[in-house]
Amino acid sequence: MKVEVCLSPALYSFYENRDAIVVVVDIFRASTSICAALVNGAKGIIPVASIEEAKVYKAQGFLVGAERNVAKCDFADFGNSPFDYTPDHVKDHDIVLTTTNGTQAINVSKDAHSLVIGSFINLASVVDYCKSEQRDVVILCSGWNNRFSIEDTLFAGALVELLSDLDFDITTDSSFAALSLWEQAKSEPFLFIAKTEHYQRLKKHNLLDQINFCLSIDMVRGLPILKNGKIVLKE
Amino acid sequence: MKVEVCLSPALYSFYENRDAIVVVVDIFRASTSICAALVNGAKGIIPVASIEEAKVYKAQGFLVGAERNVAKCDFADFGNSPFDYTPDHVKDHDIVLTTTNGTQAINVSKDAHSLVIGSFINLASVVDYCKSEQRDVVILCSGWNNRFSIEDTLFAGALVELLSDLDFDITTDSSFAALSLWEQAKSEPFLFIAKTEHYQRLKKHNLLDQINFCLSIDMVRGLPILKNGKIVLKE
Repeated sequence: MKVEVCLSPALYSFYENRDAIVVVVDIFRASTSICAALVNGAKGIIPVASIEEAKVYKAQGFLVGAERNVAKCDFADFGNSPFDYTPDHVKDHDIVLTTTNGTQAINVSKDAHSLVIGSFINLASVVDYCKSEQRDVVILCSGWNNRFSIEDTLFAGALVELLSDLDFDITTDSSFAALSLWEQAKSEPFLFIAKTEHYQRLKKHNLLDQINFCLSIDMVRGLPILKNGKIVLKE
Repeated sequence: MKVEVCLSPALYSFYENRDAIVVVVDIFRASTSICAALVNGAKGIIPVASIEEAKVYKAQGFLVGAERNVAKCDFADFGNSPFDYTPDHVKDHDIVLTTTNGTQAINVSKDAHSLVIGSFINLASVVDYCKSEQRDVVILCSGWNNRFSIEDTLFAGALVELLSDLDFDITTDSSFAALSLWEQAKSEPFLFIAKTEHYQRLKKHNLLDQINFCLSIDMVRGLPILKNGKIVLKE
């Protein structure tokens, strides 16, 4: 089984593999927030690409998470902070979600064999799933407006490292590069990230506590998986 | 002045900056071959995207370099080896060139303020030009069929390192990542590359001597630059 890392949703067609598990990653913050919402009891997350679609759902009475360029959209119930999705707000609800990058990545890869959501906080659950399925893995980094982002690539490297221990083939250039970056960063991910763009973007919005949470490995158990257009916890 | 690294021609629109110098990189092997041909006395290189265009030029009497998937095309005078472009073959000739990746990267970025060709063998000349121009730099990695490639990214990291010493802003995530990879690789680039895809591809074709040459820093002085659709040595 081969592991490949696709560094932007705009490159997905060059890595597309219909027989593979796609692991969608948007560390800051959509994939972390989706994990948090589901382990806190949300029934499902309905990812939508546009603000307009999200507003239609809102008018129908759905709870809606909506973010663009770091900020929560005015009409929405939640932004893109994992701390927004507390049990008292989300339990037993379906939540419609649209974010700058993460939901776009889900959209381009939704026809894969299976689509799961990966984040540092549920890393072990992602590894367990890949181990049980024994098939190719494409790690799809959401990036920032289709540009490369370091935090998603570091997560990819962490996952590549663990899959390598399970005898997955990690010789693809992008897997090798992601692993190399992770090896440099893993002793102090927070310090490594501190030099980068999105950190500065989040810092401006006073979100450093969220960065810490988003970089915390294995805080939760649970695997968000796409089923019939809705992301639910895998049973 | 900002330095950005664009990791694939397919991502160029997200990094496009009409006021920038674009440094097109295809270490294995188009950008290295273009440098070799020009310093060996070729008058100019006419990059074309398709085999069909190259054949039209060939019929008109031009010398043609043409490669697809590592191999020289049958109809062509040269393949994509820097060793093909010797002074006795190229001196005072215009050469039409089409390759799997490099000429595609030139094609997408040809409207930049200036487009130059970067390779390890002419690295110092690229740095000198960026220093003299004092404007933003976009390093465009040709990749492999629009996929990420490690050798182009390592060159980007080497260039980022030198531009950082000249007070260029290198805080973009992709510049930071390329630099981090280069820092890991630079003591032994050949060994680092040996784990990767394109190395294996070239090794299969018995091209290891070319890899060595393509990774040799500052073998030549000279800067290929695009002028009116033709790549010539900058005066």
